[in-house]
Formats: sequence, structure tokens, C-alpha cells
Amino acid sequence: MLGSLPSFARLVAELSKLPGIGNKTATRLAFHLLRRSHEEVNALATALVEMKQNLSFCQRCFNIAEGDLCSICRDAGRDESSICVVQEPQDLIAIERSHGYRGYYHVLHGALSPLDGIGPEDLKVPQLLERLKDQQIKEVLVATSFTVEGEATALYLARILKDAGIKATRPAHGIPLGSDLEFIDSATVQLAIDSRREL
Amino acid sequence: MLGSLPSFARLVAELSKLPGIGNKTATRLAFHLLRRSHEEVNALATALVEMKQNLSFCQRCFNIAEGDLCSICRDAGRDESSICVVQEPQDLIAIERSHGYRGYYHVLHGALSPLDGIGPEDLKVPQLLERLKDQQIKEVLVATSFTVEGEATALYLARILKDAGIKATRPAHGIPLGSDLEFIDSATVQLAIDSRREL
Repeated sequence: MLGSLPSFARLVAELSKLPGIGNKTATRLAFHLLRRSHEEVNALATALVEMKQNLSFCQRCFNIAEGDLCSICRDAGRDESSICVVQEPQDLIAIERSHGYRGYYHVLHGALSPLDGIGPEDLKVPQLLERLKDQQIKEVLVATSFTVEGEATALYLARILKDAGIKATRPAHGIPLGSDLEFIDSATVQLAIDSRREL
Repeated sequence: MLGSLPSFARLVAELSKLPGIGNKTATRLAFHLLRRSHEEVNALATALVEMKQNLSFCQRCFNIAEGDLCSICRDAGRDESSICVVQEPQDLIAIERSHGYRGYYHVLHGALSPLDGIGPEDLKVPQLLERLKDQQIKEVLVATSFTVEGEATALYLARILKDAGIKATRPAHGIPLGSDLEFIDSATVQLAIDSRREL
């Protein structure tokens, strides 16, 4: 049946390319879009095209940006002595949402993974080293993920930063706020107890 | 952060309108699309626009169609004495995939649901009644869903068909092929035993 509807089949094929969307979900989405008005479908198509036209990566920190520099690099009111290194723009957004950090960022666009053949040159590490030559930088907060690859990347950067005489820090491990001890994995509980503080 | 990226925020908003896609999934999809090439994103946008331009509903059976009539209504080799009534074009596709039916179809685009204020006039029921005036039609296979609304719609149509002297049938209930009895709900098992056949 769908073979006789090439434009429907093409939309299903394009939607199936999205992550986490298989053939069944793509078909369901295509049927949904079929019922929507021309305006609504065009709004989505326009948003797609304009996003690609307008967005790129910041030339300094590789965060997503409209224009050459992202809104954070354009903000002169931030702490110039500090760079926070994250794996992905999403991580940057999460940190910004917390309002816990007021310095600048550097987005690596991945983590070291020797088994997958991903080395420092495949990430934005050379560009970070270039930025570290700036004498103003006193601290680098290494906020890569707390996974094997993220920790390996953090260790790698910590070594470079130590050689360069720049303080390297990492967000603390511990019990998340509002959580029940019984549901926290024991490695986290152990770390939280090791880093206990006086009340 | 996203407030400074209007085209990104707009894409996330548009993607969030899709069924089953919340804000988090929409953001993840938008980040994925950001990393894809211009060509790939344009292919999706074009597929969206062309689907809306090319597709509509068949003027006879209300299946999806490119042009006035769908590929099934355009197929003169089918059994003209039979119409299969389904709720949605997806149901039609499922029946076609089974190769178990060779007549024509009629898509209601919903089921009766008095509580939601959906009556026969809100569905393609008047158009079905019009088609039933054709003396050639001997049987209507009512393949609405096996839900409360679908069964109510089937009963409603069965009554009309009986008055019109047309045979109304419904797909059999029973145990699906390849399934384990222990995992089938007991109402289905009961129906399957009631309709047991001799070997």
C-alpha cells in the first residue's frame, strides 16, 4: 500500500533516521502530520531549515551559537579566570540552568575513547590548549561526564593542566538532593561518605 | 541559554508538538539535527512539505491517496461486492499486509464515542451509507477496533446493514498465531474456546 504513496514513504524514511525513532514510530508521526494543517507542517519544515541556516558552533568555545560567538562568549560580565570543560552543548545548558557557575565554557564535542579511535585531535582539545595560553585563566572546571570515557578525559586534561600550572577541578560526587539513600548506588554512597563534611 | 538561540528554541517547540515527543526528546532530536548536514536536514524538511502537498484522502474510501482516488480504489481487479470498514488508514494497511482481503475499503476516521460527542456525522458514515446504495455490495466486513468504541461502532453499523439487507461480518476473535496460552487474557481464551472448531 505505502509503495503507491512515494511522498508518504519518503517522509517515513526521513523520520526513521532520527535517533530513537524506528519505522513504527516514524509511520505514526507521519500519520499525525498528515492530519495536521498545511501551516503546522510548514512551520516544522521552516523551523528545520532555519535552524540549520542560523545555527553553527561558537568559534571560541564550540557551544551552539547564532553568529560567530555564542551568547556566553559575547557576555563580557563573566569570570575570565575560569573555563568549564563539558562534553556536549547539552551539558553546558544543564550547568547554566543550575546558576552555579559564572565563568566561560569549552565544549569538547565528545570524550576520549581509544577503543573507538577517538583521541584528543578528534575533540576540541587543541583549541582548548590554545585558549589555556591566555595568562588570565586560573582554573579549569572539568565537567565531562561521570562515565568511563568522561573520567578518562578528565584525567587526561588534569595532567595537562597540572603541567601548565592551572588549577583543575571537578564537580563533587555525592548524594543528589531530595534522594532516598536506599535508591542510590553503593559506589556513590561510599564516595559521599568519604567526602563527608562537618555540620 | 536557549533563549538566545531563537531558531533552536523554535525547532524544539515545533518538535514538541509531535505525539509522544516531550520537551526533552525534542531537545535531543534538535541537537541531533544540528549535527547532521544541511542536505540531511533539508531532505527531512522537503519530505514534510511534499507529503502535505501530494497527499490527501481518497474521495471514495477516505484512505490516504496521491490524487483523487487511492491506489486500492483505482485497482479494478478487486472484489466489488465487498467493503471493509476500518477506523484509520493504518488499519487498512495492516489488513492489506495480511493479504487476507481482496475487496475495497471504507475508512471512518474514528469510532463512535458519545461521551466525547463523536456521532456518525463526525465520521465518514454518511459517505459509507451512500456507497451502500450500490446494488453490487453484498458484504461489509466491519473491521473497527476491538475496543469499546470500535465494538459500539460495529454494532451500530451491523444494525444499519441488516436493515439494508447487506451481510455484515467481523474478523474472528481467538488466540493469535504463535502465542502462548498463558499470556493471553482470559476473555480472549474464553471467546476462542466458545468459537472452537473441529480438527
